[in-house]
Amino acid sequence: MKEYRVAILGATGAVGQEMIRVLQERNFPVGELVPLASARSAGKRIDFQGRQVTIQEAREDAFHGVDIVLGAAEENISRRFAPSIVASGAVYVDNSSAFRLDPSVPLVVPEVNGEDIALHKGIIANPNCCTTIAMTAIHGLREIAPIRTLSAVTYQAVSGAGAAGPVELEVQLNAVLRGEDYAPKVFRYPIAFNLIPQIGDVQYEGYTSEEMKMQNEGRRILHDPFLRVSCTCVRVPVVRSHSIAVTVRFDRHVSVDEAREALSHAQGVKLMDDTDAGIYPMPLDSSNQDLVYVGRLRPDLTDDHAICLWCCGDQVRKGAATNCIQIAERVIQMR
Amino acid sequence: MKEYRVAILGATGAVGQEMIRVLQERNFPVGELVPLASARSAGKRIDFQGRQVTIQEAREDAFHGVDIVLGAAEENISRRFAPSIVASGAVYVDNSSAFRLDPSVPLVVPEVNGEDIALHKGIIANPNCCTTIAMTAIHGLREIAPIRTLSAVTYQAVSGAGAAGPVELEVQLNAVLRGEDYAPKVFRYPIAFNLIPQIGDVQYEGYTSEEMKMQNEGRRILHDPFLRVSCTCVRVPVVRSHSIAVTVRFDRHVSVDEAREALSHAQGVKLMDDTDAGIYPMPLDSSNQDLVYVGRLRPDLTDDHAICLWCCGDQVRKGAATNCIQIAERVIQMR
Repeated sequence: MKEYRVAILGATGAVGQEMIRVLQERNFPVGELVPLASARSAGKRIDFQGRQVTIQEAREDAFHGVDIVLGAAEENISRRFAPSIVASGAVYVDNSSAFRLDPSVPLVVPEVNGEDIALHKGIIANPNCCTTIAMTAIHGLREIAPIRTLSAVTYQAVSGAGAAGPVELEVQLNAVLRGEDYAPKVFRYPIAFNLIPQIGDVQYEGYTSEEMKMQNEGRRILHDPFLRVSCTCVRVPVVRSHSIAVTVRFDRHVSVDEAREALSHAQGVKLMDDTDAGIYPMPLDSSNQDLVYVGRLRPDLTDDHAICLWCCGDQVRKGAATNCIQIAERVIQMR
Repeated sequence: MKEYRVAILGATGAVGQEMIRVLQERNFPVGELVPLASARSAGKRIDFQGRQVTIQEAREDAFHGVDIVLGAAEENISRRFAPSIVASGAVYVDNSSAFRLDPSVPLVVPEVNGEDIALHKGIIANPNCCTTIAMTAIHGLREIAPIRTLSAVTYQAVSGAGAAGPVELEVQLNAVLRGEDYAPKVFRYPIAFNLIPQIGDVQYEGYTSEEMKMQNEGRRILHDPFLRVSCTCVRVPVVRSHSIAVTVRFDRHVSVDEAREALSHAQGVKLMDDTDAGIYPMPLDSSNQDLVYVGRLRPDLTDDHAICLWCCGDQVRKGAATNCIQIAERVIQMR
């Protein structure tokens, strides 16, 4: 079997480290791993498939001979290195927001629009974590009827803010439980025993940048430029796995039985829908999983064209690392 | 000034204790406080206005000469004692769910339908905590246009499950932070670092009893038997104050400016709506407050007749104790 030289841009962050784990778990055919990070981390070693691999400094000349670059760096770093990656002939699967709305770059959730990967010109973008989780949860419903609008209310784990998020939550919780003070650093306000209803800056009509991603990116993933999405994004004191209450409106009445049937065979979904028996998605259960858990299916009592559901997905895995590596798997299948 | 004999049925629970605090804070004209509880607590003493008051056993003959009974007991206790309370001539303001849907019993949020108090025949019911918070948040919008439907997604604090809820959260958090195991007792599943998307048993079309309260009780409070409400109720690891993402649909287009203007003078509301400046409701800020905090006002991007908002309210105070005592204040004003 052919093996590939795989670079990870941003190998020391939360998503980069998860990518290294997922590559091993899924037996991705890695001939050589090239972990790239800032000069500060260069020279450190990481374990990969039982071998020690040295982290190299991310520089424009680091991509020669690389087949696939998995991007786990922030937007500005991604923009800086993208031209060198594409010039080197590598395929760049980028988790940052740099190219998500670029019409020449496919934005892909493999279970939903995997066919778009074939259109790439060197870069494939990975969607926002909540968008990936919501799109994975609802895409199977399109076989019943066209989806017209989505309303989403999120419960986003602190690890969505990077590796420093869970540290801040734990330090704050310990301080509060001891009756001590703490000063928020990662988040604008205390997150221990609190909720913060703002993720990102205000972008459009009072909606934050995070809230607008589900409409802007959802339109590209679902191939529907007229899809309308209203989103409310809230940070919650959960370590891992984002949860989303979603209302899906169709162009006709859809029964819960039809929806349940469609979701029972939807790719990427684990249906957990028996509230009487206490079976529904929860963040602790869906953490470290690659499937999006879906449950609490109900008719929308305010609109007979709509149904309500609740989903949970690990935003570091399906919302980032796993989705990138699923894209990379399709890239090498197409060769 | 006339003073009243005020009994508290269930004086030792979380709501009963809060009622005793609120009576003192608001200088309710209490001539004599009669704290009632189970035989187990009878004989214990509590502090009220600097005096020691002895808890008495709740019995059918405990209400003679009492003017007002504040009910902080559970549904079955409430049903048991209601006939004796009414027969004694006292007015019974009940926080339990026993009489909320009884057409002969007013169900009241004073800022919304205080006029219904005059219709009482001895019992006035206090609504479900989330319902009270949501109705207080949105009632002021009715001056713009009729409200047709509400969609609500809740983030409910553990103290909504009684005094044992916060204890369980703290014990679990300490255990998890030390790397130890814990067995849930109060909640069906772990609540530390988790979310539980079920409050109450399934009642109708997959909706839980807690979720149906906002429609069933909201119709009575807003005097609209055709109001449609879809609700998703989720327990979150927050100690106090419930938060709710609400979409309000009108019978015509309503602008965010109109909504903001209406809410700026709505009774019972504190408007905190400047996301750019980081000003929005959060549970830590609204805890131990009697106002419902409202912010994140936005147009619903999926429906031009609707607006979205976010509100937080202390469910032990405005959601229970304070609302009951506001009702009692109106009762004595009417005499």
